[in-house]
Amino acid sequence: MDPQGTVVEIVAIGNELLIGDVLDTNTHWLCRRITGLGGVVQRAVMVRDDVEAIGREVLGAIRRGARVVFTTGGLGPTADDMTLQALAQALQRPLALHPVALDLVRARYRELAEAGYVGHAEMTPERLKMATLPQGATPLPNPVGGAPGVLLEHEGAAIVALPGVPEELKGIVEQSLPPMLKEWFGQAYYQERVMVVACGDESVLAPVVDAVARAHPEVYVKSRAKAYGPEVRLRVTLSARGQTEEQVARALAAALDDLQARLAAAGIAVLDLS
Amino acid sequence: MDPQGTVVEIVAIGNELLIGDVLDTNTHWLCRRITGLGGVVQRAVMVRDDVEAIGREVLGAIRRGARVVFTTGGLGPTADDMTLQALAQALQRPLALHPVALDLVRARYRELAEAGYVGHAEMTPERLKMATLPQGATPLPNPVGGAPGVLLEHEGAAIVALPGVPEELKGIVEQSLPPMLKEWFGQAYYQERVMVVACGDESVLAPVVDAVARAHPEVYVKSRAKAYGPEVRLRVTLSARGQTEEQVARALAAALDDLQARLAAAGIAVLDLS
Repeated sequence: MDPQGTVVEIVAIGNELLIGDVLDTNTHWLCRRITGLGGVVQRAVMVRDDVEAIGREVLGAIRRGARVVFTTGGLGPTADDMTLQALAQALQRPLALHPVALDLVRARYRELAEAGYVGHAEMTPERLKMATLPQGATPLPNPVGGAPGVLLEHEGAAIVALPGVPEELKGIVEQSLPPMLKEWFGQAYYQERVMVVACGDESVLAPVVDAVARAHPEVYVKSRAKAYGPEVRLRVTLSARGQTEEQVARALAAALDDLQARLAAAGIAVLDLS
Repeated sequence: MDPQGTVVEIVAIGNELLIGDVLDTNTHWLCRRITGLGGVVQRAVMVRDDVEAIGREVLGAIRRGARVVFTTGGLGPTADDMTLQALAQALQRPLALHPVALDLVRARYRELAEAGYVGHAEMTPERLKMATLPQGATPLPNPVGGAPGVLLEHEGAAIVALPGVPEELKGIVEQSLPPMLKEWFGQAYYQERVMVVACGDESVLAPVVDAVARAHPEVYVKSRAKAYGPEVRLRVTLSARGQTEEQVARALAAALDDLQARLAAAGIAVLDLS
């Protein structure tokens, strides 16, 4: 499969991920979401709360051709939340209190205080930190929590810094980011079909899958073993992206016909197709 | 926190991870397991089924100081399983049928065929592929599936290639790797305490956590917000590693005493400590 969509990388930040305290579900969610928009996530990395490491990964992503880089985590009020400091240093842009971000954080804490969610609405240093952004940044309203997301541009690429709390991350992507998503991913289409076959042995299915993949280079064909066993089935996923819905549907249908013919010839039954 | 343990990196391989089809739980499991052994996972990355990208990440990990690099995925029988090919190319070691690996794969398929799990025990090209290893590799018996794990050494670092199926990965780590784990991670100790506090606002807890972290640099202190709300509690995790159990316990106890005193002074109640 040749990646045809906008290339994306993800940088997930936080010691809690690498000590195994928290399972990173944000990267998975972003991968699904971006793939569904027709984008191509080429790489995702998890780093510690470390200014140098965060900066190196974001700049590396842009150097490798990413047009959009998402970071997750490290936007909160504590001293080990250092994503904005890392971006400021890597992009050489001074940090300054951003008036729009300040309004967002202030309004959010007023709301949370009125609802009894937090004790008071004062702008403490910890809360001001969340409105202190690298020069040139655009804050992205956070419908759920205190820290706004942050959008930056650098060498033609967009950097989107999102909080690590999953509900906040999803809230910003779904409510504040749609206009940018449309600009970045345009009208690409992505579609997938999943087939379950009556074959518990991937080494037997492999030649069939390989033949279909070779015959249809525009379609990504992959089988997946779950575990061995006479009752175990294998999943085969076919997916494609393209500029029009028809183009994608046509490519998938051709590969699917071919796969079904080859499975029948090999005596492997199809149990489910969705 | 200064990392004092053996430095580890993880490279998770597979398009299915980056299109969001599969949530990567292997990295999380390895992070927990390695941290518990006293090791330090400094970075984890997810890459596509791409020979160049896999090789670049493994060599980069060693260059960044990793003493052990785990790869997950890409050991199976299909053409897009290319971890061994990538390692052979990156380390410049020719691939060749490995007699011990061949015995392992042959014995495994004989067993699976006798149990009715696979149709036959013949060594097809797809099955031979799983026994074709880079020069100098040691196969690691897989108690669950067909593909052995693979151990390689390069420039003083160990590379451990594990399958992507979680049960197979865990089976190899728990049953085939213990002697090497002992050699790599030695007698380091890691311990953590988790506290739940009656405070739904991380910006209020932040100065307390920061003060404790500064006063106890040998202990890693982190608070975690789940979401906002009057009923919502925050978790504070304290963890430390060291050469003896007493040293770790003493450091944690001192930080915990300090944290409890500062929480009491700030009027924040401790709801749970484990």
